[in-house]
Amino acid sequence: MPFAPSGLITLTTDFGAADPFAGIVSGRILSHFPGARIIDLGHGMPMGRADLAGFWLGHAWREFPVGTVHLAVVDPGVGTARQVLLALAEDRLLLAPDNGLLAEALRECRSVRYFAMAADLPERLGLDRISHTFHGRDLFAPLAARLAEGTLPPESFGPPTAPADPAPLPQPARQAGCIAGEVLLADHFGNLFTNIGAPLIATCRQPWAVFGTHTLPVVKTYADAAPGAPLALVNAFGVLELAVNGASAAAEFGLRPGAAVRIVDGLET
Amino acid sequence: MPFAPSGLITLTTDFGAADPFAGIVSGRILSHFPGARIIDLGHGMPMGRADLAGFWLGHAWREFPVGTVHLAVVDPGVGTARQVLLALAEDRLLLAPDNGLLAEALRECRSVRYFAMAADLPERLGLDRISHTFHGRDLFAPLAARLAEGTLPPESFGPPTAPADPAPLPQPARQAGCIAGEVLLADHFGNLFTNIGAPLIATCRQPWAVFGTHTLPVVKTYADAAPGAPLALVNAFGVLELAVNGASAAAEFGLRPGAAVRIVDGLET
Amino acid sequence: MPFAPSGLITLTTDFGAADPFAGIVSGRILSHFPGARIIDLGHGMPMGRADLAGFWLGHAWREFPVGTVHLAVVDPGVGTARQVLLALAEDRLLLAPDNGLLAEALRECRSVRYFAMAADLPERLGLDRISHTFHGRDLFAPLAARLAEGTLPPESFGPPTAPADPAPLPQPARQAGCIAGEVLLADHFGNLFTNIGAPLIATCRQPWAVFGTHTLPVVKTYADAAPGAPLALVNAFGVLELAVNGASAAAEFGLRPGAAVRIVDGLET
Repeated sequence: MPFAPSGLITLTTDFGAADPFAGIVSGRILSHFPGARIIDLGHGMPMGRADLAGFWLGHAWREFPVGTVHLAVVDPGVGTARQVLLALAEDRLLLAPDNGLLAEALRECRSVRYFAMAADLPERLGLDRISHTFHGRDLFAPLAARLAEGTLPPESFGPPTAPADPAPLPQPARQAGCIAGEVLLADHFGNLFTNIGAPLIATCRQPWAVFGTHTLPVVKTYADAAPGAPLALVNAFGVLELAVNGASAAAEFGLRPGAAVRIVDGLET
Repeated sequence: MPFAPSGLITLTTDFGAADPFAGIVSGRILSHFPGARIIDLGHGMPMGRADLAGFWLGHAWREFPVGTVHLAVVDPGVGTARQVLLALAEDRLLLAPDNGLLAEALRECRSVRYFAMAADLPERLGLDRISHTFHGRDLFAPLAARLAEGTLPPESFGPPTAPADPAPLPQPARQAGCIAGEVLLADHFGNLFTNIGAPLIATCRQPWAVFGTHTLPVVKTYADAAPGAPLALVNAFGVLELAVNGASAAAEFGLRPGAAVRIVDGLET
Repeated sequence: MPFAPSGLITLTTDFGAADPFAGIVSGRILSHFPGARIIDLGHGMPMGRADLAGFWLGHAWREFPVGTVHLAVVDPGVGTARQVLLALAEDRLLLAPDNGLLAEALRECRSVRYFAMAADLPERLGLDRISHTFHGRDLFAPLAARLAEGTLPPESFGPPTAPADPAPLPQPARQAGCIAGEVLLADHFGNLFTNIGAPLIATCRQPWAVFGTHTLPVVKTYADAAPGAPLALVNAFGVLELAVNGASAAAEFGLRPGAAVRIVDGLET
């Protein structure tokens, strides 16, 4: 069954909110496809971190209706020979530079078709004057517009390909008597996301999280700790999260991305 | 007359702009109601401060056309037994956790009908897998979608209820010869909003504002002071504002939320 | 040919993202014209800097389809007698306070018609209760709505006029053997935009950029320098940019807006 676009396009970038870069991308999209409906998924991705953009996009792309085109531009290699990658997964499209971002976002997805942009596609689409530093505007925006408009079927985008390997987001490891992982990021609330997923944790009968000076049972929600008290839970994205009820864990614990976190089984100790 | 939705949904949260939480909520809304038109009223509400979110929403909800659904998620009690509250006021809907946010937003509104979410509503709507930490995505988004789509009339949301009391935003007091209030917040420009409203000020024939080391007449606009000079005015939200023409009052005055502000009547001194 | 609105409105302001000011403007627009499609071009313009808002708007307004109404509110003179200005250029409208913002944005545009808001227009449109401090909401929003709806033709906005002079963004100068310019701003990535445009640079056969302690050839893209190395290029907005591959030039070079930058011709030395 061919891809049926809904006209929805999401934008995920590291462009920030201070400069109008993301708005300019929206303008270019609309100039190619005036009927586009654009949702800013987020422009606060950590600068140049395709791995973390892939992490977030991986937790967001299925939230949108089938027919959505997800455009992600975290592109430190802009202007180099890096490919432009299109993925078709579960009736949605994902478009990004081929720097591992999409492979990370689709790590858990089993049925993906990848396409590499044909070298002559920009010319066929009449895209001239492509700058060396802002492909989000000059290349990705018109491509996303045509894909969302339905005038560029994914099959016409270019030949099937395999994606570049994802950047090496640290993976958790099973070790003797524990799961060894680490802090991936701190969110807006100072909650610390780790790389230890729910299925791994479910292998423990009584999971306790060990980090910094803390050893805590894995609970359900913030209010399972007293106000101001530390806690560990499996968060809404399916990963172990270290938190403080009503405060910033990043500030309270002094832990940064990369800090070690272990899960031990309380029944085994 | 039944509520007639316009398809418009606004979002007001403390999710910030760095992570894609707000975009994910938009995605979930669109997956339930693809025709939704979503406006980000703001994701920079002070963290966990339902009172201030209520203050801002109270100054914004009437700006939108009738038929709008306003979703506000500042929800430090997520995962606890706190209720989910729907308000129908002047042909608009407001949906939020029942933590005082809506009562604050609707403090000045005389004809509000409140509904408490029926305990079985999520199940009736087929909402399974509701996380313990992200009700904005798992519960509020689909509810707002159905309300804006018109497939969930407010009357089917749940039984009539009374809202939780608003968090105690400090209220001004009439004292001998003056009105005693305080600074509520500093905005993006460093202008200081106080809790003293225009009607109270109008009880003075010649209102002067007394704060920090300053005693100033209440003027009309920023340019009534010289560049760099301090001033006090009734701002566009109907409250006394302390400002500096062309600079940040928060920085210049060194006043923080809670700082005392008085209005005295120049004719009485 | 009369202006044919597309229903698209963009917003460019210095309102920031923390407070819901921009969302409130959107609400007021929608209350006047429910069919409006609003794109946030950006609310992170430097506070009160109409000149820089004009610079960015100048690099963005043509990206949007014909029929777009661009509303820009950087308005330190709100509440004073400053005019309200409408510009019709290349089948798009631009609306802003007449403080030089639009003249800067349209500096390179040859066929612009300017209109000054007729003094009685607000009254004719039924706009009462215009505050002294938030014309974005009370005046500009309804005006943009009517223009985008097509119920207020530009010719009915007011008499033809000439715009206020743009604020004096520093202009580059040709000097003996070099072009002398300066740093205008640092973007989100810490890249330094200068005021030296591509046509001036093209007058050099082998342009080298001289700034701080660096003398570097003008290259094509970031990857023309080693990771962490400094570089100079003509960026996607057609101006000389000082950058560091994968890092912040603003931080690495310690240069701020106003810092001197020269272009010399390598063939002449």
